[in-house]
Amino acid sequence: MVKDFLEIPKISIQSIPGLPEIQAGNLLGKLIGEAVHKLNFPVQVKDVFVLTHKIVAKAEGRVIQLDQVRPSSLARSWAQELGKDPSLIEIILSETRRVVRMDKGQLITETHQGLVCANAGVDVSNSAPGMATLLPKNADLSAQKVRDHLQEIFGCNLAVIISDSFGRPWREGLVNLAIGVAGLMPLMDYRGEKDNAGRVLQATAMGWADEIASAAELVMGKTMRLPVAVVRGLNYEEGMARCSSFFRSSDKDLFR
Amino acid sequence: MVKDFLEIPKISIQSIPGLPEIQAGNLLGKLIGEAVHKLNFPVQVKDVFVLTHKIVAKAEGRVIQLDQVRPSSLARSWAQELGKDPSLIEIILSETRRVVRMDKGQLITETHQGLVCANAGVDVSNSAPGMATLLPKNADLSAQKVRDHLQEIFGCNLAVIISDSFGRPWREGLVNLAIGVAGLMPLMDYRGEKDNAGRVLQATAMGWADEIASAAELVMGKTMRLPVAVVRGLNYEEGMARCSSFFRSSDKDLFR
Repeated sequence: MVKDFLEIPKISIQSIPGLPEIQAGNLLGKLIGEAVHKLNFPVQVKDVFVLTHKIVAKAEGRVIQLDQVRPSSLARSWAQELGKDPSLIEIILSETRRVVRMDKGQLITETHQGLVCANAGVDVSNSAPGMATLLPKNADLSAQKVRDHLQEIFGCNLAVIISDSFGRPWREGLVNLAIGVAGLMPLMDYRGEKDNAGRVLQATAMGWADEIASAAELVMGKTMRLPVAVVRGLNYEEGMARCSSFFRSSDKDLFR
Repeated sequence: MVKDFLEIPKISIQSIPGLPEIQAGNLLGKLIGEAVHKLNFPVQVKDVFVLTHKIVAKAEGRVIQLDQVRPSSLARSWAQELGKDPSLIEIILSETRRVVRMDKGQLITETHQGLVCANAGVDVSNSAPGMATLLPKNADLSAQKVRDHLQEIFGCNLAVIISDSFGRPWREGLVNLAIGVAGLMPLMDYRGEKDNAGRVLQATAMGWADEIASAAELVMGKTMRLPVAVVRGLNYEEGMARCSSFFRSSDKDLFR
């Protein structure tokens, strides 16, 4: 009974407060390390640090002043169609490889990295007034840099996930998903394992990086300045796979 | 400092082992209550119980023996096209209001309840051999019944979410989402609140029920017989909204 109890999967998730307002050029790993030290929070091996993409984008200078953008005539025309700021549309178009849908005031695009999302991930909320925040250029690499830094500070194996909020085609409400990952396999692959009836599972790979990002959002809040959370107790598979490796390829895409 | 620490959002999630194999007619609330008592797990006010839909479907007798189904000629023809069992296709069609996509061996449909998912949620994994499990007929109502039972047993306000695993259009890997909810508002609505720069947030309602379902999956596992988890510490909004109220309406759907 006691033995069973110890083996019951259990995780905890807590946010890390105390980060300053992030500026271009800041070393995120160092700032997060300092916030963790101030908290007196003992980091443990296999802890997963989840960061909202916004602080990563700010640290990497991926912030654009809207009034310094000269919208093209295409951007002006689409802005009118969509009821949005022409400068914002110009920035979105520069981040866009392919328009997936433009309808009902919505612009769903595929970014140059292959991520399908609203407005190519360009966002004005939680940015300084008159500013737009872009996605990190390579969020897997951003995650890797923060991970290296945190592992150096804390001396143990850790994982890092960079998250963003996504709408979904058939459901209201946004959820946080992973756009970059380091040290953790983004998919928990059950294929080949057997279900309770002894049948081999066919199509069951779970999107753990996404589920972890969603779980972390529950302690972040949109208005509380809590852009970092630590998820502890996960028995995840360590590895170097990139988040971008599980963006679906066009030949399997039913919703192009 | 200590005060700050106490206010830091923190949640814990643990699975509840010890449930028997569920049979039609079982009272799930009662069985979960017994499993919780055996664990010596002190239930607290506002705990969220997350249940995989499969045990709910089994308790409600939503299980069909494949060899008792007579597939129509349409089902036989689609089964050949999709490389699936004709009886399974027949069951899927009976659960389907509208076919969203049928391509590349995939069948994405809208159920009579308005849920868009693969195979109308009909599933053979973790079912007895030769059996298919259907979604609960009304998962919000199922959640409500389990909640009533658990609140009676434990004497405090609780919430219940029923989850299922969903594929996503542009990402590999499944994630657990909410298909039924009781006692918890499925959307955490930040609209009207101000962001860090003092700007009113426009379009930010977070899909908390979905994020909680995803978080709970992290301690459930597909092959471990752990269909129930408890999420503790969430400052969720109590309320009687139904999960089906946030399935997107057809006039807003860009991916019909």
